[in-house]
Amino acid sequence: MSKQCEPSVKGARIDHLGIAVESITTARGLYEALGLRVTHEETVEHEGVRTAMIPLGESRVELLEPLGPDTTVGRFLSKRGAGLHHVALHVDDIQEAWAELQGRGVSIVSPAVQTGAGGHLYFFVHPKSAGGVLLEICQDPV
Amino acid sequence: MSKQCEPSVKGARIDHLGIAVESITTARGLYEALGLRVTHEETVEHEGVRTAMIPLGESRVELLEPLGPDTTVGRFLSKRGAGLHHVALHVDDIQEAWAELQGRGVSIVSPAVQTGAGGHLYFFVHPKSAGGVLLEICQDPV
Repeated sequence: MSKQCEPSVKGARIDHLGIAVESITTARGLYEALGLRVTHEETVEHEGVRTAMIPLGESRVELLEPLGPDTTVGRFLSKRGAGLHHVALHVDDIQEAWAELQGRGVSIVSPAVQTGAGGHLYFFVHPKSAGGVLLEICQDPV
Repeated sequence: MSKQCEPSVKGARIDHLGIAVESITTARGLYEALGLRVTHEETVEHEGVRTAMIPLGESRVELLEPLGPDTTVGRFLSKRGAGLHHVALHVDDIQEAWAELQGRGVSIVSPAVQTGAGGHLYFFVHPKSAGGVLLEICQDPV
């Protein structure tokens, strides 16, 4: 069976939704009202952001609060206001996803597959190739 | 055990991401490059929209293409451009979710829990109460 006939890429699921907010303290209230919980909070100094993770089925919501106005998320808030910053899709084979998208002329923001905290692999697709959404493709550490 | 101690609301997961696009034909290409497939397309005349559903793990992406400029999605595109229109969270008990959110003063757009196609139940939370995201809470037909 050719690749074209396969029903779905292996391991594809929504990994997380990154939502830019002015205040995690305020924004978490809605999710807590629904019985959901912040299970982890972390300040990532080099990215200028504080994050709060809320598991939600096989996915999670990540609230992103900027550490100051001159950060990626701070500039996003100034320009667009609070809202969805990015959608992350999990796949089992990120190198295959990279090759497929490159081959189809999809606009990729990252210069290559990146390695993040804990060996997590990721790259970003430009919103112009993804229906106006900044799309992260990610894979678990190998 | 009190409700406050429960780890998560029953059945909570991301049901779908509604993404407003100028053209489903163009937008679906990215997902197809990742091996994902449009499994259902539908024109909903009374909402002025054409939809394409792309299953993704326990969730799905719904591409929303307006039938004309003077529709909900058409006005969204004119004002904001392509991008995430709403996030839908599935819960097992929508009446409980409605009561919890009402009790905490969350701003709800819908006048009551609504019944949609096929008996699907839903209501919308205002973006000002949900980190700038238009949030749909939904439940399967009873």
